Amino acid sequence: MAEIELKTRDFLSAAQAEALFDFEPVGASLHELETPVPIIDFDVMLANLIRWQMHCDRLGIANWPHIKTHKLVPMAKLQIALGAAGLCVQKLGEAEVMAAAGLHDMLLTFNVVGESKVRRLAAVMRNTNIAVVADNETMLAGLADAAKSAGRKLEVLVECDTGLGRNGVQTPAAALALAQAIASSSHLTFGGLMTYPPAFKRQQVASFIASAKELLQKAGVPCPRVSSGGSKDLWDDAGLADVTEYRAGTYIYNDRQMVAAKSCTFAQCAEHVLATVVSVPTAGRAIIDAGSKALTSDLGGVDGYGVVPELGFAKIYAVNEEHGYLDISAAPRRPKVGERVKIVMNHTCPVNNLFDKVVFGRGDRVLGAIKIDARGKVQ
Amino acid sequence: MAEIELKTRDFLSAAQAEALFDFEPVGASLHELETPVPIIDFDVMLANLIRWQMHCDRLGIANWPHIKTHKLVPMAKLQIALGAAGLCVQKLGEAEVMAAAGLHDMLLTFNVVGESKVRRLAAVMRNTNIAVVADNETMLAGLADAAKSAGRKLEVLVECDTGLGRNGVQTPAAALALAQAIASSSHLTFGGLMTYPPAFKRQQVASFIASAKELLQKAGVPCPRVSSGGSKDLWDDAGLADVTEYRAGTYIYNDRQMVAAKSCTFAQCAEHVLATVVSVPTAGRAIIDAGSKALTSDLGGVDGYGVVPELGFAKIYAVNEEHGYLDISAAPRRPKVGERVKIVMNHTCPVNNLFDKVVFGRGDRVLGAIKIDARGKVQ
Repeated sequence: MAEIELKTRDFLSAAQAEALFDFEPVGASLHELETPVPIIDFDVMLANLIRWQMHCDRLGIANWPHIKTHKLVPMAKLQIALGAAGLCVQKLGEAEVMAAAGLHDMLLTFNVVGESKVRRLAAVMRNTNIAVVADNETMLAGLADAAKSAGRKLEVLVECDTGLGRNGVQTPAAALALAQAIASSSHLTFGGLMTYPPAFKRQQVASFIASAKELLQKAGVPCPRVSSGGSKDLWDDAGLADVTEYRAGTYIYNDRQMVAAKSCTFAQCAEHVLATVVSVPTAGRAIIDAGSKALTSDLGGVDGYGVVPELGFAKIYAVNEEHGYLDISAAPRRPKVGERVKIVMNHTCPVNNLFDKVVFGRGDRVLGAIKIDARGKVQ
Repeated sequence: MAEIELKTRDFLSAAQAEALFDFEPVGASLHELETPVPIIDFDVMLANLIRWQMHCDRLGIANWPHIKTHKLVPMAKLQIALGAAGLCVQKLGEAEVMAAAGLHDMLLTFNVVGESKVRRLAAVMRNTNIAVVADNETMLAGLADAAKSAGRKLEVLVECDTGLGRNGVQTPAAALALAQAIASSSHLTFGGLMTYPPAFKRQQVASFIASAKELLQKAGVPCPRVSSGGSKDLWDDAGLADVTEYRAGTYIYNDRQMVAAKSCTFAQCAEHVLATVVSVPTAGRAIIDAGSKALTSDLGGVDGYGVVPELGFAKIYAVNEEHGYLDISAAPRRPKVGERVKIVMNHTCPVNNLFDKVVFGRGDRVLGAIKIDARGKVQ
């Protein structure tokens, strides 16, 4: 791996970026690959990374990319090299993988609950600057234990439910109360507010955050960070006045859900699943070797399980575990048994949690495969 | 591993069955496990295995269990020890794992298409008795190449589309034509008919198979095997007169889809995902640490993504990658942050493709973990 100075704000050349990856040879052409397999166009991916980093720079918002999308150490290093302030991890298992690779600035956006998790958090704290989130007082004792064990204070952001209806304190007053509980612990520091907002509801989110910030200010509690996120509406500049940092994951590869949200084009989808047509039993149906164990069953508001642009955006209308059912009734031509097709998946993140390796290429040329370091690290 | 004679028709004791597994210690109690984690009750699982084997024995149908559900070598050995005639594998990668473990009687129920797949099939043929399926003439040349390379004939069953609308020849006449094409190859032998039937349509399936058998008989083409399968209606004895062997997968663990199909009870569900409540943000909602990367997004005709029996069958009404949204509005009690819950998943098979290891236990007592040998072997 090339010695590229991390933390640089200068964008890298494609060659410099590529040098961060230690590719394993898997043949020269996409046509030689075993299918089904996830393939990533390096240049499309790099353009996506740079485009978003430039956008964050222009807004003056720190970029904290979510590594749950790619789960790759070299990609995390590339994101940092391009200017990301730190990495967002969703699970301790991901944090452990990144910590072992020498990446230290992290935000863990999932409640750490339970004794063994607390022990593992303490271990990660020893060689990283990891911050965490909390949305309830019950878990603070565990976080304090982790800090005690690690021998330093732990930074905790308060997660706010700004309308998604998932985790988070329900009101700005509850955010203040939890922030005060954190600040009153001799082992914790209050780092600010964090939310995973509902998409396309920026004003509603901004209003919650502004109210919480106002309460914190009146109470004399400093609020250094406001961390927001989400991919579908990431190009919308509205409602970000209080936001100091943004967590996006999918932007790096893009997918069909992002196209549907008008946040990218099909040409900006860097990752595909390459599959083989194994049967064309009728004029309207082809069966491919990518089913739910390659594409997942994620729908996320779109119809079907993926599309094949080169066949007139033929839709995968059903999946079983190993079979994908492709509707070729309106395709410009009938695919043949043995033909390869490139699928735009509905949702890129869970696909990278299914495969042990992912293949990078440029057009039809293969650069090589790399292990998906944090695959399956859901604990 | 205990030296248990494989291929015995005598059912084993739980202790003998357990001795087939080389468990890795992961703590004594379920309460000590990291979550989310798939857990399997050994005794419930063993009872499921024996119950189905006895049913097959009573019907005089050979049991060819689908290992795609569990992807475990010791479980495959246990199935054989209990009387299974052979193993059904869905992918070459699964066949390779089983072949490496010394399991040789296999049926690969997925079209083998493409040069590299043909090479891999030839390698598996060298130390196993693997048979395959085909539903089109295009792929026969590749199968013949594999047989040539392996130096022995390859047995090929003709896959019939008996109403599911997936792979398969469309008519009994087409089944005959493909069988004749197979039989006319000096490298292939026609092994019989295979179908993955639509559930609860046994007469329609039987009628297709009977017609195809009649055509084969008239043409003087022997049809030694008729392989059917499917889990949802596996206890239905109807329409199996021509069936010589049955492929079931889910019966070993069962799941919510099987309960919905009235093919098992919740008490017969051997596998659960153990999760931790990480937030109870409102009176009606708890958030658990099992989302689509632990449970999948598979719906399969049921509502929601899983249920928690101990909380009045509270439903997981939504999932994100790492979050499960549990509706506790009608639960008999409000779960606490840190509490463990056991989830009955919608579909057990893809869950075992997400985790590197699965934990076996008896009630709350842990027996140990084992690696999921064929996880991710989708190629």
